[in-house]
Amino acid sequence: MQKILRKILGAAGTSAIFIYGGALTGTSPVEAAVKCGPKPAAPAHWQIPANNNTVHWGYFSKGLKPQAVVHSGDFVTLETLTHHANDDASRMVDGDPGAESVFKWGKESKGVNRRGAGPMDASIKGRGAGEGFGVHVLTGPVYVCGAEPGDVLEVRILDMYPRPSANPKYKGKTFGSNAAAWWGFHYKDLIEDPKPREVITIYEIDATGQRGWAKAAYNYRWVPQTDPFGVVHKIIDYPGVPVDHSTITKNTNVLKGVRIPIRLHFGTMGVAPREADLVDSIPPAYFGGNIDNWRIGKGGTMYYPIAVKGGLLSAGDPHAAQGDSELAGTAIETSLTGTLQVILHKKKDLGGTLVEGLDYPLLETDTEWVVHGFSYANYLKALGEKAQSVIYSKSSIDTAMRDAFRKMRHFLMTAKGLSEDEAISLMSATADFGITQVVDGNWGVHGVMQKGIFPENTK
Amino acid sequence: MQKILRKILGAAGTSAIFIYGGALTGTSPVEAAVKCGPKPAAPAHWQIPANNNTVHWGYFSKGLKPQAVVHSGDFVTLETLTHHANDDASRMVDGDPGAESVFKWGKESKGVNRRGAGPMDASIKGRGAGEGFGVHVLTGPVYVCGAEPGDVLEVRILDMYPRPSANPKYKGKTFGSNAAAWWGFHYKDLIEDPKPREVITIYEIDATGQRGWAKAAYNYRWVPQTDPFGVVHKIIDYPGVPVDHSTITKNTNVLKGVRIPIRLHFGTMGVAPREADLVDSIPPAYFGGNIDNWRIGKGGTMYYPIAVKGGLLSAGDPHAAQGDSELAGTAIETSLTGTLQVILHKKKDLGGTLVEGLDYPLLETDTEWVVHGFSYANYLKALGEKAQSVIYSKSSIDTAMRDAFRKMRHFLMTAKGLSEDEAISLMSATADFGITQVVDGNWGVHGVMQKGIFPENTK
Repeated sequence: MQKILRKILGAAGTSAIFIYGGALTGTSPVEAAVKCGPKPAAPAHWQIPANNNTVHWGYFSKGLKPQAVVHSGDFVTLETLTHHANDDASRMVDGDPGAESVFKWGKESKGVNRRGAGPMDASIKGRGAGEGFGVHVLTGPVYVCGAEPGDVLEVRILDMYPRPSANPKYKGKTFGSNAAAWWGFHYKDLIEDPKPREVITIYEIDATGQRGWAKAAYNYRWVPQTDPFGVVHKIIDYPGVPVDHSTITKNTNVLKGVRIPIRLHFGTMGVAPREADLVDSIPPAYFGGNIDNWRIGKGGTMYYPIAVKGGLLSAGDPHAAQGDSELAGTAIETSLTGTLQVILHKKKDLGGTLVEGLDYPLLETDTEWVVHGFSYANYLKALGEKAQSVIYSKSSIDTAMRDAFRKMRHFLMTAKGLSEDEAISLMSATADFGITQVVDGNWGVHGVMQKGIFPENTK
Repeated sequence: MQKILRKILGAAGTSAIFIYGGALTGTSPVEAAVKCGPKPAAPAHWQIPANNNTVHWGYFSKGLKPQAVVHSGDFVTLETLTHHANDDASRMVDGDPGAESVFKWGKESKGVNRRGAGPMDASIKGRGAGEGFGVHVLTGPVYVCGAEPGDVLEVRILDMYPRPSANPKYKGKTFGSNAAAWWGFHYKDLIEDPKPREVITIYEIDATGQRGWAKAAYNYRWVPQTDPFGVVHKIIDYPGVPVDHSTITKNTNVLKGVRIPIRLHFGTMGVAPREADLVDSIPPAYFGGNIDNWRIGKGGTMYYPIAVKGGLLSAGDPHAAQGDSELAGTAIETSLTGTLQVILHKKKDLGGTLVEGLDYPLLETDTEWVVHGFSYANYLKALGEKAQSVIYSKSSIDTAMRDAFRKMRHFLMTAKGLSEDEAISLMSATADFGITQVVDGNWGVHGVMQKGIFPENTK
């Protein structure tokens, strides 16, 4: 999910803060919490459950306390939760202790108070702490020992599977939510009444991950929801608002017989950016983040340029299925668990490798190289002090295509040793450029190059 | 190939002319040349060779003399020639009577004089008849008996295969040209010297069509070419200029070992537009034309809204391979022959069918439905009298994505009977939007929907 809030980011976005388990302090650096020690002979396998102590909601930060301190080669199994679980808490929260701890929201307190990179005092009326300026529940971060700016972090996605519904009524099933929301590409361009409207569609998924398709269970139109603090949400303007199902009208006559192909992936995964202490989780950029490319799933490997010491890898925004463009603003948002292996590539060793000079998130699958272009390759640097707000008025596929072209050229000339003439002819003849998303502020275009065309990969 | 000439279209673009075999007259309508007669019991199979009597170069026109007058259900085998054959005449023209008749250019005359929709008096210095305002060699048109505006023409692509080199030196092979040209997306954004530059890369292809990949043979940088009329072409500003190979430097150290996947298709295929008598072949629109989608190949079926009586289907701009975006301005441009079956769907019978209300070119493959969006769905109508020039300053993927979204919604609501809420959620979860081309003035975005998701197609 990618929520666009066209507001000015508050002071919290630029102050020098460090965050530990959600609490802000002004004194302790991340380093003080980290004990790396010597690298063991065998890789370790870390488990990070998802709960209100292990997630950060709506932002990346170089000041976050690590949830695991790992060495290159270690494995990490990471639970991730969809921030849309409260669209149907009965199916996606109830009975699940981790999810309950995150989504808990009473009259006095929330399981996770800060949601977004905005100010904690909710300066904008009718919102909450963090202002929903950033929406994704992210698990982590993972601190990688020895990682420093200029290095590259390779993240192999070894496995990924759905999180079963914990409600006994739905044994063997799990569910996801698709919100056709106000930040969607369609929203101001509707033809049926009422206009505009937001629509939630709940999908059912086989919890074992064996069945290759999802089906729609029902949908409902968003009606104003009053959160436990008493704030009314006329639209979907803050993440995790519990939807009171006594207020909505369920329509089960939806997409009868239609089978949506499953494409399990992390919508959001990346390392901490260097430019600000709190960074809205919505716009993706050089550090990865909310790329929303459905190819970032099992069997895929991501390469990220490391921007801060330790890298600080986080993942979340899990998706069961999404099309290129993520048109309506969200995918089928479903809680997932993934197993990753992290490999550190030191800057001094990058020369002559596939990731020499890498300054963007690169995906490798079994068959493809995929470069990721954005309206702004690094909007945080390019757009000045108010970059995190300004980016939402600068969204364009045209500029993202320009960026994707340059990155594909760089990849072909650097990783594959081609001349510029060779690279450009090859791109024209065989590179497929697609629209990753048009809903995340910093819009995305990905360029796909088949690996099998190169002699070293010819089968 | 898609050549963008940002010039004002001359008077020929709006005068009421009729064209017969390339000669202009002011009197005879197309209808006078057509004898439909009763529909025979069995479908006929028509053959249209490519030569200087059967092609029109650089434009569509409702005033063209048909090369075949067919009934719904008939088959047409259509030879098509790449307008880039003269980039290496030895490999792509010599010894081939059809190609020689088209590309013939002596001191006094050309095999095909008009190339483009511009004025015949070549008002712009240093160009030729038609001004190269439109560049594709198109074979046809095919007049479909009974076809009227409002009907839909279904064109099934039953077969497609390369045209072998007629030069005995290259027996069993054929060739294609990729021009990284001044209208490419990369041209003003080069990093290696000299800047700017145009580069031709010649590719070798298995003439039997059995080997699934092409390989680069050599490349050269464009140097000024003097055409047989004595006009110097400093850049690639007119189609079919013979390249004097004594003036160029061949570099055979190009893309060594790289195998480009073959994707045989017609870059350009469509019916005659209604809005003007001569229409530049470069910008695609509602009538099809230069869509440049590599999926429009063997096994595919196109559906076009018919704009003029008889439909007047033409095809050309054959490609051996192309990536989504056609980045450098051309594909691997290679002469091909295709066998089509044309099926007429009368307006009165469209209700309740997949093509009800169709006002854009729709592709069906074995596995997919593909809608085609453009910066302007119908630029000829939207941009006024000078539309054919103005479009080149209005190119945008952003607006093409808007158009593709609307067309996909229309398809899902009309052909599949979904509500708008269903259509939008389904698109977000599974429709893939890609960048068809960024080099044809009216830039393209295609939306792909898997057929297998619908219950009637579930296997």
